[in-house]
Amino acid sequence: MASEKEFENLKPMTVKTLDEILGKPFKVLDDGFVRVVDYMGSDQSIVQAARVSYGAGTKKVSQDRGLIRYLMRHHHSTPFEMCEIKLHVRVPMDAWRQWIRHRTANVNEYSTRYSIAIDQAVKTDPSEWRFQSTSNKQGSEGFLEAEQGKLFSIEEDNLHKNIWDIYNKRIEKGVAREQARKDLPLSTYTEAYWKIDLHNLLHFLRLRMDKHAQLEIRNYAQTIGNEIVKRWVPLAWEAFEDYRMNSKSFSGLEMELLALISNKKKDEAIETAKKIGWIKYKDEKLVGNLERTEFEEKLELLNLKKPW
Amino acid sequence: MASEKEFENLKPMTVKTLDEILGKPFKVLDDGFVRVVDYMGSDQSIVQAARVSYGAGTKKVSQDRGLIRYLMRHHHSTPFEMCEIKLHVRVPMDAWRQWIRHRTANVNEYSTRYSIAIDQAVKTDPSEWRFQSTSNKQGSEGFLEAEQGKLFSIEEDNLHKNIWDIYNKRIEKGVAREQARKDLPLSTYTEAYWKIDLHNLLHFLRLRMDKHAQLEIRNYAQTIGNEIVKRWVPLAWEAFEDYRMNSKSFSGLEMELLALISNKKKDEAIETAKKIGWIKYKDEKLVGNLERTEFEEKLELLNLKKPW
Amino acid sequence: MASEKEFENLKPMTVKTLDEILGKPFKVLDDGFVRVVDYMGSDQSIVQAARVSYGAGTKKVSQDRGLIRYLMRHHHSTPFEMCEIKLHVRVPMDAWRQWIRHRTANVNEYSTRYSIAIDQAVKTDPSEWRFQSTSNKQGSEGFLEAEQGKLFSIEEDNLHKNIWDIYNKRIEKGVAREQARKDLPLSTYTEAYWKIDLHNLLHFLRLRMDKHAQLEIRNYAQTIGNEIVKRWVPLAWEAFEDYRMNSKSFSGLEMELLALISNKKKDEAIETAKKIGWIKYKDEKLVGNLERTEFEEKLELLNLKKPW
Amino acid sequence: MASEKEFENLKPMTVKTLDEILGKPFKVLDDGFVRVVDYMGSDQSIVQAARVSYGAGTKKVSQDRGLIRYLMRHHHSTPFEMCEIKLHVRVPMDAWRQWIRHRTANVNEYSTRYSIAIDQAVKTDPSEWRFQSTSNKQGSEGFLEAEQGKLFSIEEDNLHKNIWDIYNKRIEKGVAREQARKDLPLSTYTEAYWKIDLHNLLHFLRLRMDKHAQLEIRNYAQTIGNEIVKRWVPLAWEAFEDYRMNSKSFSGLEMELLALISNKKKDEAIETAKKIGWIKYKDEKLVGNLERTEFEEKLELLNLKKPW
Repeated sequence: MASEKEFENLKPMTVKTLDEILGKPFKVLDDGFVRVVDYMGSDQSIVQAARVSYGAGTKKVSQDRGLIRYLMRHHHSTPFEMCEIKLHVRVPMDAWRQWIRHRTANVNEYSTRYSIAIDQAVKTDPSEWRFQSTSNKQGSEGFLEAEQGKLFSIEEDNLHKNIWDIYNKRIEKGVAREQARKDLPLSTYTEAYWKIDLHNLLHFLRLRMDKHAQLEIRNYAQTIGNEIVKRWVPLAWEAFEDYRMNSKSFSGLEMELLALISNKKKDEAIETAKKIGWIKYKDEKLVGNLERTEFEEKLELLNLKKPW
Repeated sequence: MASEKEFENLKPMTVKTLDEILGKPFKVLDDGFVRVVDYMGSDQSIVQAARVSYGAGTKKVSQDRGLIRYLMRHHHSTPFEMCEIKLHVRVPMDAWRQWIRHRTANVNEYSTRYSIAIDQAVKTDPSEWRFQSTSNKQGSEGFLEAEQGKLFSIEEDNLHKNIWDIYNKRIEKGVAREQARKDLPLSTYTEAYWKIDLHNLLHFLRLRMDKHAQLEIRNYAQTIGNEIVKRWVPLAWEAFEDYRMNSKSFSGLEMELLALISNKKKDEAIETAKKIGWIKYKDEKLVGNLERTEFEEKLELLNLKKPW
Repeated sequence: MASEKEFENLKPMTVKTLDEILGKPFKVLDDGFVRVVDYMGSDQSIVQAARVSYGAGTKKVSQDRGLIRYLMRHHHSTPFEMCEIKLHVRVPMDAWRQWIRHRTANVNEYSTRYSIAIDQAVKTDPSEWRFQSTSNKQGSEGFLEAEQGKLFSIEEDNLHKNIWDIYNKRIEKGVAREQARKDLPLSTYTEAYWKIDLHNLLHFLRLRMDKHAQLEIRNYAQTIGNEIVKRWVPLAWEAFEDYRMNSKSFSGLEMELLALISNKKKDEAIETAKKIGWIKYKDEKLVGNLERTEFEEKLELLNLKKPW
Repeated sequence: MASEKEFENLKPMTVKTLDEILGKPFKVLDDGFVRVVDYMGSDQSIVQAARVSYGAGTKKVSQDRGLIRYLMRHHHSTPFEMCEIKLHVRVPMDAWRQWIRHRTANVNEYSTRYSIAIDQAVKTDPSEWRFQSTSNKQGSEGFLEAEQGKLFSIEEDNLHKNIWDIYNKRIEKGVAREQARKDLPLSTYTEAYWKIDLHNLLHFLRLRMDKHAQLEIRNYAQTIGNEIVKRWVPLAWEAFEDYRMNSKSFSGLEMELLALISNKKKDEAIETAKKIGWIKYKDEKLVGNLERTEFEEKLELLNLKKPW
C-alpha cells in the first residue's frame, strides 16, 4: 500500500514540558488566570499530518523544523489544526466579549443564570489608569498622574461596593439571577473552558498579542503564547514568531518603491510616490497619509531613509 | 445536459412583503430594536437549491410547500442555507453575550473602544422585576410586588446616573475609552449588523424563542421570527413552526411506553417504567425523576393518563 | 471563589477501553479501514463542562448518566464539543466526497498531486450489485442475480486493469500526477486523518448511519459508532441511541392526530386529516401523501391502527 | 443616540456592473462554467459595516477607497463578510474535491444518487498533456510533444466511451445510481450552487489563483476573480490585488538580512546567513536551502544581488 509508511507512527504523542504545567494556573490581571486542562498532539503531530498530505521524503527528526517552517511560511494551515488544547480561563467579561468573537472554538462558560455571579470585577490600581491614545483611536498610552488615579480608584471601589450591595439585595428578595445581574459592571470576572485547535489559537494570538489589542486581553494572549504554546509546540511557536509576529508585509506598490529606494533611485521613488497619491502638499506642508506612514516605519526597520 | 432544467430559473428573487419593511425598526424592550438591512433569497430559492440536489420531478408552484416541508422534516438543511439576511439590532450587552454564542454568523458591532458608549442601559419598570423560577434553575417566573419593584427601580435609576457620571468624568479627564467603560452595567445597549443564513437563523430562533431562553433575548427572537422571517419565507416558517417549535420527540424508551399506554396496557407500562428506573419509592412516596416528568407532560398533551 | 468547586477535577481523563484499540484498524468494505490515532476527553469531560455551565448540584458518579441524558435530550450540545477524536481512515473517494461535506472537522488527506495514487478501487463482488430502490430515489435495495452480477464484476475488473495501465503509462511518460489521475474511477481509495469533536461526530453518525445514507458510507459510520464511540463515551453513546437514533418526532399536527387516535376518536381523526389535506380521493382511491405515510409508519410502531 | 449617524444608509445596494452579467455563464475548461445567481452587498456595504465598528469620521465617497485599503491591509476581515455571493458552477469532480475543502461556504451539489450522472468528463486536448514539474512536487510545467499527446488523447477518448457504455449498461439492468457511478472518471463534471461571503471568497481566490494551485481550479479562480469579483467590488478587488496577490512577506530573519543587503553590508549579511544555517557547503558546493531560495527570489524582485 502506497501510504503505509506515511501513517506508521500512530501513537498519541505527549509533551513532557507541557505535562509539567497541566492544571497550574498562570495569573493574569489582578484576579484572573489561564491553565491547561487537556491537550492533543505536538510538533510531531503537525509533521505527521503534513507528511500524509504533502508527501513523505526523508523523515529525520532534524528535518521536522524545516517542514514546520515551510508549512507556516506558506499558510498550509491544516496540519496545525491537528493539535487541540483545552484551557480553563478566568477573564473579565469585557475581555471575554472580544475573546469569543473568535468563532472556531468550543466554549462552556460559567452561567450567571444558574449560579450567583462571581463577586469580583477588575480593580484598577491608582497607577494603572491609562490615557486615551491620540494616534490609535482604539487604544491607550501612558498613565494618569498618581493623584487623579487615586481618586478614580477610590471612586471605583465605592461604586463596586454599591453595585454588589444592590445585586445581593435583589437576590435576597428573590429576583431571578438572570435579571439581578443586569447592573453588574462589564469587567466582572467570568470563567470558562475554551477548547481550540492550534491553527485557530495562533490566529487568535496574532490578533490579540498585537499592540492594537486591548491591554487586558493582550495580557492573556501573552501568557497563553509564552507560557503555554511555547512549551507545547516549540517548533511551531518559533516559526509563528518569525513568520507572523515579527514578519513585515510589503504590498505590490511598496515592493516597487522599496526596489527604487534600496537601489538609491531617490528621484524615481518620489515620482512613483506622487503618482500613487502618497505625496501631496497643502500650504507647502506634506499632507498626512496613513499608508505612507506605515511604509516609512518599515523603511526605518531596514535602516533606509525615506527619500521625500 | 442532464441538469439544464434544474438551473433554469436563475433570476434573483425579491420578496414583496419583506421589501415593505426594509429598514423599519421593530421596537424591542424599552429602547432596543431590530430591522432588516438586506437579504438574499426566498422560499423559491430553497426549492431551487433542493431541486438541484434532490432531483427535479414536477415543479408546480403548488408543490413547493410539500418540498419545503419535506426538507424541514428530514433535516435536509443545506437548501435553507441558500437564503441570507442582514439585520441591524440594538440589544443590551447581556443579551448580546448569548446572541453571539451562535458562531455561524457575520458580525460588526459598535465599538466602545473607538467611540463613546451608548449612554443607555435597560431600565426595569417597577412592575417588571421577576422572581427566580423554582422549577427552572436558569429562569424566572412571576413578578415582585409593586412596592418592592418601585424601590428597586428607583435604586437602579440612581445607580445608572452614578455610573454614567463616573464614566463621563473619566472620559473628560482623558481616560482611554477601552478602560473607562469597565464599570458600565452589563445591560448597556450596543448595536450591530448581524448577518446569517436561514438555516442557522432558524436554529437560533428555536433555542431563543424557547421558554427556557432568557426573557430579554426571547423578545428579540420572537420579533425576528414573527415580524421578519414569517414575511420573508412564509412556507419555511410554517414548516419550522410545525416541525420544530410545536413538535415533540419521543425517545426509543418513550415510544415503547407510549405504545403500551395508548393500547391500555397499564400494568406492562408500569413494569417497563420500573425496569428503566423511572419508578422508585422512598418512604412510600414516588421519587422525582425528570425524564419521567417530561414524558408525563407529553402524555397530557395527548390526553392520555399516566398509568402509575 | 464561587466556581472553585466546579473546576476541581482538572486531570486529563483517559479511557481504558479506548486505549486498548488505539491504532488498531477496523476493516470496512473490501480494502478500507478506520482506526483511532488520538483522542481527548471522556464521558467525565462532558459532565465536567456541563457542571460549569449549568451549575453543580450533587456530583455522585451515579448521577453522571442522568446529566448526560439530560444534555442530549435538550440539545445542550456544547459540553459534547469538549471531547475530540482523531481517526485515520481509508475510504473510497465517492464516499469521501460525502464525508467531507461535514464542515466542522479538521482534515489532512493523502495527496495524489504529491504522490502516486493508491492503486486500489472498491471491487464489487458478483453478489453485491444492488438494484435501484423504487421507494427511495437516492437509495438501493436487493441484489442483482448472480449471473448478471458476475458479468458486471468481470467487466469492472477489466476496466480497472485498463484504467491503471493508462495511468501508469502516463506517469512513465512524465505526465504530471495532478493530471494523470483524471480518469481514475470515483471509487479509488484515499486516506486521511480526520479530527472532529464529539457533538459533530454524533451529528455525522446520525446522518450517515441512517438507512437513507449510501451503503458504503453507512458501513464506515456503523464501524465508527459501534466499535469506537461506544468504547470511548459509553454513556453519551447510550443517550445518543435512545434520543437520536431510536427516537421519533411528531409535528404539531401529528400530536393532534395522535391524541385523537390513541383516545379512539376515529371520526375526528379522519376529519382532521381531511382538513390538513392528508386525505384526498381520486377515482375512489386514496391519493398518496408522503407526510401521511410517514405518520402511518409511526402509528405502526405504536401498535395503533390508522383510522382511515 | 451616538450611533444613529452610523446606520443612516440602510438601503440594500445594487451594483450595476454586476447586474449586467447576472446569470451569464463564463466558460471555463472545455465544458465548465461559472455564473452569478444572486448577491448581497457592495463596496459600500463594507464601508458601512466598518464605520459601525471602527468609528465614523468623515464620510466623503473619496475616502471609501482609503478605508477599504486600510481594512484589507490590517486584516480587519469582518466588514468583508457583510457581502455575500451565490454562484452556479459546472466543475470536474477532481477540481470540486479541492473546492469544497473551503469549509465556510454553503453548497448544494447535483446528486448522482438521485439523478443520472452528467455524461461529460474533461477531455484533454493533444496539446494539453502537462509534464510533472521537477521544482514543484505538486505541480506541472510544460507540455508533452504533439505525437505523444495525440496518443494519450485518443486513448482517453476510447476509455471514456468504454466507461460510459458500462455505466449505461448498469443503469439499464437496474443497478442503483449510487453504485453504478463508482467507475466514472474523477474528472466527470458536476454542478452546484456555491454561496460564500466576500472575505472567505477572497481567501479561496488567494489560494486557488496561486501558481501552486492545480491548473484546472486556477482557471475557475481566475474567472471568478477577474470576471466577477472585479465587477462586483472594484475597490476591494484592487486592495486585494495589491495587499494579497502582489504583496511579499519578509520574516523577522529576512528583515534583518534585507536591512544589511540594502545598506551594502555584504559581509555581515553572509555572516548572519551562516548563523541561521542558510549557508552550508558540501564538497565545496553551496547546499540547497528552500528558505534561502525563496528569499533570493524576493531579492531579485527588488533588483538586489544576493551577497553569497
